[in-house]
Amino acid sequence: MTRDKIEIITDVLDANRVVAEENRRILKQAGVFAINLMGSPGSGKTRVLERTLENIGNKIRAGIIQGDITTTLDSERLMKFEVPVVQINTEPFGGDCHLGANLVQRAVKSMDLSQIGLLFIENVGNLVCPAEFDIGENLKMLVFSVTEGEEKPLKYPLMFRECGVVLINKIDLLKHLNVKIDHLTQNIRRINPGAEVLRLSAETGEGVDEWISFLKDRINLYRAS
Amino acid sequence: MTRDKIEIITDVLDANRVVAEENRRILKQAGVFAINLMGSPGSGKTRVLERTLENIGNKIRAGIIQGDITTTLDSERLMKFEVPVVQINTEPFGGDCHLGANLVQRAVKSMDLSQIGLLFIENVGNLVCPAEFDIGENLKMLVFSVTEGEEKPLKYPLMFRECGVVLINKIDLLKHLNVKIDHLTQNIRRINPGAEVLRLSAETGEGVDEWISFLKDRINLYRAS
Repeated sequence: MTRDKIEIITDVLDANRVVAEENRRILKQAGVFAINLMGSPGSGKTRVLERTLENIGNKIRAGIIQGDITTTLDSERLMKFEVPVVQINTEPFGGDCHLGANLVQRAVKSMDLSQIGLLFIENVGNLVCPAEFDIGENLKMLVFSVTEGEEKPLKYPLMFRECGVVLINKIDLLKHLNVKIDHLTQNIRRINPGAEVLRLSAETGEGVDEWISFLKDRINLYRAS
Repeated sequence: MTRDKIEIITDVLDANRVVAEENRRILKQAGVFAINLMGSPGSGKTRVLERTLENIGNKIRAGIIQGDITTTLDSERLMKFEVPVVQINTEPFGGDCHLGANLVQRAVKSMDLSQIGLLFIENVGNLVCPAEFDIGENLKMLVFSVTEGEEKPLKYPLMFRECGVVLINKIDLLKHLNVKIDHLTQNIRRINPGAEVLRLSAETGEGVDEWISFLKDRINLYRAS
């Protein structure tokens, strides 16, 4: 072996990227569309997931990888749906504040991918770190609650820049808040003009149809690619 | 110098701890009580800070170190108060998701400590990473919004375990949410029985007096020590 052939992985992010590309290949081979679901603690990620499973219909079979530092509370919430759920706790790995491609690969390999067409990977609740790590997803998705305030896209730009779709959640609370959703939307567009921005309330169901329709389009595009 | 005398700093957390202890000494010498103010994005940290500055009275002079990944939006909000504000942006340092003791030391050394008795260090909005890093504070304080949900202390235990005081914020929104504040309080106590747990709305002012009274007690205890 010549020296040129030795691949040197120089840092954590590089190493992560290599594994993420592997994950993407594995998922593509199985025809599974994977979404990296991110957002602050309490932005409503699991609630959006519940609404999505209720409304996605029978033609698309979903699976879930549930990332948390500790506890299986979110996985338990999702047990009522007849979908495979794999829990990843980062606590034994130092209580990591994000999912890495390695842990996701382990979870993916433990699933029967032939049974699903859509995989949600719910990341650790955090508006900062998860944005830095590719886990092999096809779409990065942010659930952002109106209660977090309209200036956050400017303060946490990486997350907003990375995401292909931003779901502005809890719009039913707008009437009780000093938050202007148009201003929030403008701030998102300033940081990421290409992102799809949708408004909904996972609690009341408002806007869920538009989200489901966008999701189905993206899955069809992926399958055709 | 013998080999035994060589202090080897083995990892990032150790190195951080050494600098944090230096910060604590510098602050103690100047008689400054320092608070590490943490919480998720949008939990209301800056709003709580504004309320505190409005209500703390003339006897205690405050200073602020404002930590953000990017932007000076929060510092600008605080400019209306006649207090020294130093901005730290972590973006040039890799967009760090938390403040480290080094950056805080640089900010502390740039301030005239003889002019203040209380220093708020507002950390990056994040319920995970800042909890891991001692920055030389005397009190770790969490601002947690009721909109984040009652099970979060169980899911993000390190932050709740580390904090000496938890401010449950935005209680004016409780009537619009499916969140039971007693259940939330129980979950906090389960993780950290010793923490002071206070309820308030920085928006309406409810509960602010109790918080100010707790804060003054803690400053007096520090001064007497």
